[in-house]
Amino acid sequence: MNRDDIPSVLLSNAVGEFNKLPGIGSKTALRLVLHLLNQNETEVKKFTSSLTLLKENVKFCSVCQNISDTPICTICSNSSRLQYQICVVESIRDVMAIEKTMQYKGLYHVLGGIISPMDGIGPSDIAIDSLIHRVNEWPEGELIFALPATMEGDTTCFYIHKKLDSPRIRFSTLSRGIAIGNDIEYADEVTLGRSIVNRTPFNVYSHK
Amino acid sequence: MNRDDIPSVLLSNAVGEFNKLPGIGSKTALRLVLHLLNQNETEVKKFTSSLTLLKENVKFCSVCQNISDTPICTICSNSSRLQYQICVVESIRDVMAIEKTMQYKGLYHVLGGIISPMDGIGPSDIAIDSLIHRVNEWPEGELIFALPATMEGDTTCFYIHKKLDSPRIRFSTLSRGIAIGNDIEYADEVTLGRSIVNRTPFNVYSHK
Repeated sequence: MNRDDIPSVLLSNAVGEFNKLPGIGSKTALRLVLHLLNQNETEVKKFTSSLTLLKENVKFCSVCQNISDTPICTICSNSSRLQYQICVVESIRDVMAIEKTMQYKGLYHVLGGIISPMDGIGPSDIAIDSLIHRVNEWPEGELIFALPATMEGDTTCFYIHKKLDSPRIRFSTLSRGIAIGNDIEYADEVTLGRSIVNRTPFNVYSHK
Repeated sequence: MNRDDIPSVLLSNAVGEFNKLPGIGSKTALRLVLHLLNQNETEVKKFTSSLTLLKENVKFCSVCQNISDTPICTICSNSSRLQYQICVVESIRDVMAIEKTMQYKGLYHVLGGIISPMDGIGPSDIAIDSLIHRVNEWPEGELIFALPATMEGDTTCFYIHKKLDSPRIRFSTLSRGIAIGNDIEYADEVTLGRSIVNRTPFNVYSHK
């Protein structure tokens, strides 16, 4: 749907704004805007004000940079979690995904991006200094890298490792391998190769 | 992504609002909201105000009910279009789709819905009276039904036909058949059957 085909400038503007969102093409944008146009004024007001309120009042945890309604997020302020274990992630969506597994009991650090010289993102543009500051206060502990398996993700891991390298700190990274339920013959070569090199000890009890 | 997994009420509310849109699941809603959260305040303001402006100032053509920035839309006020030919459609999206084909030179009438007793939509809930009023003023003309090929669409056609039945008015409906480019063997039986019953005269010149 070309914007010239839309018979109203107001409609066309709203469609254009939706069209800017990731994964929303112009046809979907039109469908969403017309849906909202069919709602009563209170509903549309609720929709727009939820965004305005979020943008104006959003807070990020001063410790881990996760999104939070309080100055320190519920994870960082939970004293029953392991205090000397930090999982380093790119975005708050990664925190939500890992929390959902209910397998992790440590803390997080949200970088808010990864080092990517191609996009002009250097170490000072993401939350690395605050991470170093946190870890330097530890007696000892573990840093778990949960960053993308890309050139940029690896670069970020190497940079942080170099900055923090000390016998006090253990470094680990998420295991890469064949997804549970996937057939071995269909796994890509890199993943399959990595899963052989990084094979894990067989354990009758964890092998459900 | 369950809303309980989202660490902020403000974020959760905005995700909930996006989640109400048709075809937007909770994971996509989260992705869209986080994208907007990453934009600067001006961009978010532009997004929300485009919707508010649309909702507050939207106008519909007083003749055909199409969306319009003027009291009478550009199609209805275009005197070079056929004045005694009306294409009856369900929504303004149908107008845009037909206009895009550039094959139609008459006017439109947007019903704003179709008769659907299951959903409690009767003839008085959609713009049928204004259509009858328009057609009754004609010396003669043609009404083209471009409504969905469903029970509700057919009911709406029958209702309007009964109300307006007169030798002055020709009635027609969009042709149904096998889409151009589709294989005959893969067409569904109802469509294929309809395309045989409603076969059209073969014309060397229109057969490109």
